[in-house]
Amino acid sequence: MIPTLEWLPEGVNFLDQTKLPLEETYVLATDYKQVATVIRDMIVRGAPAIGVSGAMGVAIGIDRSTAATIADLTAEVALICDLLASTRPTAVNLFWGINRIRELYNTLAAQPGASIAAIKQAVVAEARRMYDEDIAACKQMGAHGAHLLPKQGTVLTHCNAGALATCGYGTALGVIRAAIEQGHNIDVLADETRPFLQGARLTAWEMMKDNIPTTVICDNMAASLMHAGKLQAIVVGADRIAANGDVANKIGTYGVAILAKEHGIPFYVACPWSTIDLATPNGDAIPIEQRAAIEVTHHGGKQLTPNGVGIENPAFDVTPARYVTAIITERGVLRQPYGEALQGLEAATASAR
Amino acid sequence: MIPTLEWLPEGVNFLDQTKLPLEETYVLATDYKQVATVIRDMIVRGAPAIGVSGAMGVAIGIDRSTAATIADLTAEVALICDLLASTRPTAVNLFWGINRIRELYNTLAAQPGASIAAIKQAVVAEARRMYDEDIAACKQMGAHGAHLLPKQGTVLTHCNAGALATCGYGTALGVIRAAIEQGHNIDVLADETRPFLQGARLTAWEMMKDNIPTTVICDNMAASLMHAGKLQAIVVGADRIAANGDVANKIGTYGVAILAKEHGIPFYVACPWSTIDLATPNGDAIPIEQRAAIEVTHHGGKQLTPNGVGIENPAFDVTPARYVTAIITERGVLRQPYGEALQGLEAATASAR
Repeated sequence: MIPTLEWLPEGVNFLDQTKLPLEETYVLATDYKQVATVIRDMIVRGAPAIGVSGAMGVAIGIDRSTAATIADLTAEVALICDLLASTRPTAVNLFWGINRIRELYNTLAAQPGASIAAIKQAVVAEARRMYDEDIAACKQMGAHGAHLLPKQGTVLTHCNAGALATCGYGTALGVIRAAIEQGHNIDVLADETRPFLQGARLTAWEMMKDNIPTTVICDNMAASLMHAGKLQAIVVGADRIAANGDVANKIGTYGVAILAKEHGIPFYVACPWSTIDLATPNGDAIPIEQRAAIEVTHHGGKQLTPNGVGIENPAFDVTPARYVTAIITERGVLRQPYGEALQGLEAATASAR
Repeated sequence: MIPTLEWLPEGVNFLDQTKLPLEETYVLATDYKQVATVIRDMIVRGAPAIGVSGAMGVAIGIDRSTAATIADLTAEVALICDLLASTRPTAVNLFWGINRIRELYNTLAAQPGASIAAIKQAVVAEARRMYDEDIAACKQMGAHGAHLLPKQGTVLTHCNAGALATCGYGTALGVIRAAIEQGHNIDVLADETRPFLQGARLTAWEMMKDNIPTTVICDNMAASLMHAGKLQAIVVGADRIAANGDVANKIGTYGVAILAKEHGIPFYVACPWSTIDLATPNGDAIPIEQRAAIEVTHHGGKQLTPNGVGIENPAFDVTPARYVTAIITERGVLRQPYGEALQGLEAATASAR
């Protein structure tokens, strides 16, 4: 079990993903401000993990509060949620995670005779439940999606949509793990994923922990390997999926999707339902985080570029729905047209509740 | 003038491209073995520069030889050429450069009363002439190709096909320089070009020396910038062009060409005629250099990947001719079908001689 994040009595403990693969160290966040810093600095990253981290951030903020009245606590909750929501803009799971605890808080706080102690207990329990649900959702994605992967072959993934991007097991890498557990003979090809190198550092690290044969390539090598017939499927995660099926994911995903289409290779997206944002009509409406130039200009303290050159560093891009062969969720596998498929599965799940 | 390489009385002086952009240092090669090392270690790189370096390597080998007879010198020339030809396999210019000096040597050595002193003088003069011809060819490419670039806009390039890849001015960057000299208002977008970072380190450095506005991006960002309409043309160099127009160039070029097609952006290749290899029927027959894993796994002495993970590091890929909008050479601009166009221009030039 890869300990991406964990609720402990003393705080939320995060595996420091900026230090992998060479160091396995932890950052203990003992208040919500520290959780916000952990998310902003990408000590934890990956949309589902960020979602649960946001929930745990609100929960720890409420739990550690010294407010003496519900009114004071409510005011504090607003500040807590605002800070956590300001950390990263693209992954909708963050807002989903924050809002789920906030809504529970609002419901409990509005009840006659609401007790601060009982509220604290309830929000912490809810955040911890979301952790368990996230792992269960990953396992379900695996169960639904494993048959899509080849019985024998190489599967390319971009960035890290694994145990390290979730509370465990992974979304895209969860589907790969499930296929392997079902007897598929799969090699993983990991795009290194510049500039933050989540593929080279994180996907490679967690695949090797599980003894899954893995090869790292530079992002710009995928096309020639596709041309040579060296990979049979692609599976990636997502940071937000709009109502029409457009997929925001790590920068470079869109390019991989175009290459997949050009070579007739299936391109799958795996994510929990909390990544789906039916309130956002299409990819153009998804905010794309721009990160600091230093992620591109430097590595390991060494400067790569000449002083003063311009730099672009968008952290995500949008893959139009037409490039996506299927979307794998814990509720099932969706196919085009995604607008109808997403609405249908949302309605079916709501009516089944 | 960027001093990529220079024939000096004491040897061939190379700007050390592995140290750019932070250090501008030189490596003086005083014998042919040192020239071979400089090429193999990519202290000099870029197909046209490698071609002239190979020629200068043979010339310095002959010039510094202590052979007392033509027979001894001829045996030595074979060794010299073999070593230099073994340094890098993909750029055909290397073999063209070596062979041009070798053929001149063979002609002179076969003459009755051949003098070693006269041969030495002649081969050095020929290698230095190739240097001048290379710069002139770049200027001609610029003259032929400049009108293809937008009057106003952003041009993407991959790797470094600039002054640093030639004896000066550049192929792809030469076309950009020529367009700017003709009054075009062009910004350059430079793919950083993993793993060796020729774009981030070299293209950015030489463009900034010329005050040409330049932005560096990670290779995987090009697709989203194309989608956003932020670039109007692409121009790259080449390491070898087969008889059917297939283009071997720096790894990642093929992917850029596919993205260009998908977004309707013209994709130009600029190279001297010495890059065209009519003896190689198509891209499948071009040998692709595989370089050491450490270029991918480490940067600046820092390890990026976990121990033991697999690595692929092909240094080049092949872009099928159908993706290429035009090939810009010093003899003119070629359009599809390239097989006929290349044969036609070769025949026309031969008959004009």
